[in-house]
Amino acid sequence: MPGKDYLEEKAINTIRFLSADAVQKANSGHPGLPMGTAALTYTLWTRHLVHNPANPDWANRDRFILSGGHGSMLLYSLLHLTGYDLSLEELKNFRQWQSLTPGHPEYGVTPGVETTTGPLGQGFTNGIGFAIAEAHLAAIYNRPDFPIIDHYTYGLVTDGDLMEGLVAEAASLAGHLQLGKVIYLYDDNRISIEGSTDLAFTEDRGARFEAYGWHVLKVDDGNDVEAVDLAIQQAKKDSRPSLIICRTHIGYGLPTKQDTAAAHGSPPGDEELDAAKKAQNWPIEPRFYIPEEVLDSFRQTLGTGAESENHWNDLFNSYSVEYPAEAAELKRRLAGNLPENWEKSIPEFPADAKGMATRAASGKVLNSIAAAVPELMGGSADLAPSTKTWLEGIPDFQVGQYQGRNIHFGVREHAMGAIINGMAYHGGIIPYGSTFLVFSDYMRPAIRISALSHIQSIWVFTHDSVGVGEDGPTHQPVEHLTALRAIPNLVVLRPGDANEAAQSWAIALRRKDGPTAMALSRQSMSVIDRSLYSPAEGVERGAYILADLGDQKPDLVLMASGSEVDLIIKAGEKLAAEGINVRLVSFPSWELFRKQDQVYQDSVINPDIKARMAVEAGISLGWREWVGDLGIIMAVDRYGASAPAGQIYEEFGLTVENVINQANLLLRKVE
Amino acid sequence: MPGKDYLEEKAINTIRFLSADAVQKANSGHPGLPMGTAALTYTLWTRHLVHNPANPDWANRDRFILSGGHGSMLLYSLLHLTGYDLSLEELKNFRQWQSLTPGHPEYGVTPGVETTTGPLGQGFTNGIGFAIAEAHLAAIYNRPDFPIIDHYTYGLVTDGDLMEGLVAEAASLAGHLQLGKVIYLYDDNRISIEGSTDLAFTEDRGARFEAYGWHVLKVDDGNDVEAVDLAIQQAKKDSRPSLIICRTHIGYGLPTKQDTAAAHGSPPGDEELDAAKKAQNWPIEPRFYIPEEVLDSFRQTLGTGAESENHWNDLFNSYSVEYPAEAAELKRRLAGNLPENWEKSIPEFPADAKGMATRAASGKVLNSIAAAVPELMGGSADLAPSTKTWLEGIPDFQVGQYQGRNIHFGVREHAMGAIINGMAYHGGIIPYGSTFLVFSDYMRPAIRISALSHIQSIWVFTHDSVGVGEDGPTHQPVEHLTALRAIPNLVVLRPGDANEAAQSWAIALRRKDGPTAMALSRQSMSVIDRSLYSPAEGVERGAYILADLGDQKPDLVLMASGSEVDLIIKAGEKLAAEGINVRLVSFPSWELFRKQDQVYQDSVINPDIKARMAVEAGISLGWREWVGDLGIIMAVDRYGASAPAGQIYEEFGLTVENVINQANLLLRKVE
Repeated sequence: MPGKDYLEEKAINTIRFLSADAVQKANSGHPGLPMGTAALTYTLWTRHLVHNPANPDWANRDRFILSGGHGSMLLYSLLHLTGYDLSLEELKNFRQWQSLTPGHPEYGVTPGVETTTGPLGQGFTNGIGFAIAEAHLAAIYNRPDFPIIDHYTYGLVTDGDLMEGLVAEAASLAGHLQLGKVIYLYDDNRISIEGSTDLAFTEDRGARFEAYGWHVLKVDDGNDVEAVDLAIQQAKKDSRPSLIICRTHIGYGLPTKQDTAAAHGSPPGDEELDAAKKAQNWPIEPRFYIPEEVLDSFRQTLGTGAESENHWNDLFNSYSVEYPAEAAELKRRLAGNLPENWEKSIPEFPADAKGMATRAASGKVLNSIAAAVPELMGGSADLAPSTKTWLEGIPDFQVGQYQGRNIHFGVREHAMGAIINGMAYHGGIIPYGSTFLVFSDYMRPAIRISALSHIQSIWVFTHDSVGVGEDGPTHQPVEHLTALRAIPNLVVLRPGDANEAAQSWAIALRRKDGPTAMALSRQSMSVIDRSLYSPAEGVERGAYILADLGDQKPDLVLMASGSEVDLIIKAGEKLAAEGINVRLVSFPSWELFRKQDQVYQDSVINPDIKARMAVEAGISLGWREWVGDLGIIMAVDRYGASAPAGQIYEEFGLTVENVINQANLLLRKVE
Repeated sequence: MPGKDYLEEKAINTIRFLSADAVQKANSGHPGLPMGTAALTYTLWTRHLVHNPANPDWANRDRFILSGGHGSMLLYSLLHLTGYDLSLEELKNFRQWQSLTPGHPEYGVTPGVETTTGPLGQGFTNGIGFAIAEAHLAAIYNRPDFPIIDHYTYGLVTDGDLMEGLVAEAASLAGHLQLGKVIYLYDDNRISIEGSTDLAFTEDRGARFEAYGWHVLKVDDGNDVEAVDLAIQQAKKDSRPSLIICRTHIGYGLPTKQDTAAAHGSPPGDEELDAAKKAQNWPIEPRFYIPEEVLDSFRQTLGTGAESENHWNDLFNSYSVEYPAEAAELKRRLAGNLPENWEKSIPEFPADAKGMATRAASGKVLNSIAAAVPELMGGSADLAPSTKTWLEGIPDFQVGQYQGRNIHFGVREHAMGAIINGMAYHGGIIPYGSTFLVFSDYMRPAIRISALSHIQSIWVFTHDSVGVGEDGPTHQPVEHLTALRAIPNLVVLRPGDANEAAQSWAIALRRKDGPTAMALSRQSMSVIDRSLYSPAEGVERGAYILADLGDQKPDLVLMASGSEVDLIIKAGEKLAAEGINVRLVSFPSWELFRKQDQVYQDSVINPDIKARMAVEAGISLGWREWVGDLGIIMAVDRYGASAPAGQIYEEFGLTVENVINQANLLLRKVE
């Protein structure tokens, strides 16, 4: 069919030149990837990808991830051409202020963009999360003749992705879990920013992925539509995740820049671009030229997509009749609504001076809520016995038991983070991942993207201070709370007792527009007597008055988070006994407190009370905002030490006695 | 020789029980690794490792890295037994306050500890840095018959290491570079914290490492000294890095806990430990029992070690006669001294209103200094053309040209970080690594360890704000400066012009007791006219007065870092023209400023001047400390945007006009 071939070539060139024109117009961006992989993605999008451009939210659509997010124009071209709500005007505004076509794809900004990519390896790994979500939902909800959840996760991945460590972690886990619906096209263009991949990347990638348990295929010519098509067909039939290694040419068609690093990240230049068009018999003007027949051809996706979705809707309707409870639950989950009365599952802990570590409380809360909230699913980077995140009585997620909700991530924090994000992007699941707070550093890029993408990833970080004890400074976070507080749109919670831990989980479950991180203690602390102190529901306001001790306006405000709340309560009670009017403030979350109005904020931290003191077993950075110029910050501005936790607290001056001494000093200072 | 075998078995059991006794006494720690790998390390340390316990600093010693740092007691046992300055008393004080035996090995604390390990994957990857340093120094300084630098890098690595992404990155690079002197024993005990490695780690590890270009060997019984010995012999002969997969048994000998996760991270308990000893005919008491003949045997290392070092000293003396210049230079480098007059290589940049990006200035400075300082060596995670860190006219570090000083790390930020640390630990090299500031997140665990270990790693981070422009929020750091400032003992520098960039490099080179991170701009800024403003040498004090404009005590202090210094100068000049007395403060480093005495600090940021304002294109967190209760912080408390940089600055209000407006508001407020 020469006619068809000709049209295909035209369609592929349309993707290439649309992308290159946009980069050239913006005078910024990455032409090399779109030009080199246009044929790959053309084949995937027109022959395999099941999606409906008219409804990017259709639950059972195939997912496509552009892991090399720098090639964003490729994706924007495909979205526009197949009929997503992304106008040509937006393509012309590539990389401009408030356009829908930012430099790298951003979830929530552009219809049809499934994940925020650009930082390498994230997209690849998100896809493993998509596949886990898909496999899990399928295992729970599908019934004979009702493959309600049954989609592929496709991706275009790059050399840069394959060099990143989190991809190695994710690929190993995906192979272990036999996530066969993952099909990745690898853009093997042999060029990286510093030059040929021969400079630093000469491993046998295919053999590596085979060692992980992947199905590895090769396509010698990434412009060969039939070969790519065949490889995808084979990949679909295989029960292993597939990596299709496609030999491509970066900046394909650029006369002097093809196959060079110069094609990667700079506009081609008018001359180069014009010559490329000429060589393909492409009109040099107008820019952003889309042949009518090409557009017609691509836009057929709107018809086939609607058909696919309608078919699925019919299936789902029949399913709803046969399995009304399952259908209702799945619908609720996909809509992101929590089950009715779920909040009744939040436990209350009785006052207890002996106390409980907040990680232990968190474990109880999580288990209690998980019984009521089936979409809660997650795991740990090989630390579940310590982070207390295991769901008791529920299987682990493994081959043959994808209905399991406990994921063994292995010692793979970064992949865990990006997989959790993938599950959150997917929908139908509220995912959590856990490790020690000090290892939040290992997964920080994924935490950042969860916040940037406004998704509901839940991060459970235990062993949250020098209270870790004997493991020593390598395992004792001191700067990590601050470092997490620095991430915009991340809510960080450091609960001060078991009931605050319960409230923290409630907040994390309710928060749909961004991630929540919890910092939980290894060591025990009192369960605060709420008959004497305010209810733990105050957590949702970020900071709240536990009590004003004494009968006059406070002379002194003592504030603390987490395990140090215990300290200020004990110190405050003694100070009050000496006749000082003390306000005790539990301060689990700066972000939530900042969201309160000024009246509330001032009612808790009255700027007129100059004697304000904060106690936290971490660095002091940032607390000045709350204690003011004259205030005192009792903090740990150094690395920790290896010794029993109690002794470290003594040696570092984090004692009731020292709080009292410092408070007295402060009161004299402000007088 | 049954007598020898018997003694060997005794020696191996001594390592096992010494380690287990210490864990039991501390009631904290990890007995499983030492008990399982005692025979492996016994074989390595007594038959292969060339070292001199009397001089842990001998330059050409073989390095041994315990990558699974949780097994620290193994290393402490070996160090004590072979005669390092680590008493039995210290072993009895394992994990106690101020002992030399912290929970995880810490560089600089315990003689003979080569790296700080515990956070998994770091040690493995440091070793690749050791091997790069070794190969490089050998290529530069060795001469026929003078193999002055010629040592192995051995390591004991674990499942946890092999699951971590940075290890995948490092292993791929090590295979590419054919670093044949890396020999790692892999403790294949098939147990992780959550249980069997079958739960999450079923890839074919041997095949994976072969795909990286490693030489992979197997030892079926990790207690078989001869088999381990033979494998190490084979590894030494191979030109590839070697991974020796040794089947071991975690907690070997513990009657109920061997081969279970219970042996990993908890004391065995007296009963279990006693039974283990009984089964080996080991005396239950005294604890910490070391048979005399075992100690004698281990302590022979002092003799052979001294001999090895003496032999090397003789060789070096002869070398010094034949190659005096090389010998002197190598000696200087190993001593950590900079060349005489190196500071003359720091360029000065003339005032220039058009200006220059600090990344560009940094590139010129680095190249100029590198010509005078041969130990300066490093590279980028595939971003050298953007980070401007390429040393011109110097080859890259590749197989066959290990004399090269430009390292292509590939897109492997985290491995780059830990490799740089390895080079710094090794000595003889001042290493630097570079990427975009936003990707400092990818390598944060390595940055932290450089700071904790007090080593001279230099981190060059460019594209340091929303000034990145079109690449958008995924590539625009906003919280990263703050997150780096949070790390104790890391000096962060954000130079305000080309000459401050030059001073930053000078500071980084002089700073021997910790790492330095630079945040450099993508976009141009003025080169400040130093005839009007104070010299850039002020950078070394962290913050300094550029000028007091006006003839009276300042009404207003404007402070900024990096690209925003330009803004406050322009705004300050206009305000001064309106008759306001303005102090302009360049504030490149909070850490250096904090190190100044209070008198200096107050002389720059006078607490009596309440109208203080800070401008920085990043989050505001932490600036309150410097501007005070009434001050204003002009910051970017949100993610960035994809648009031309100039427009982003406009939209975010980072303009001269807005600085002036805010300053006027502030002046009214404090009146």
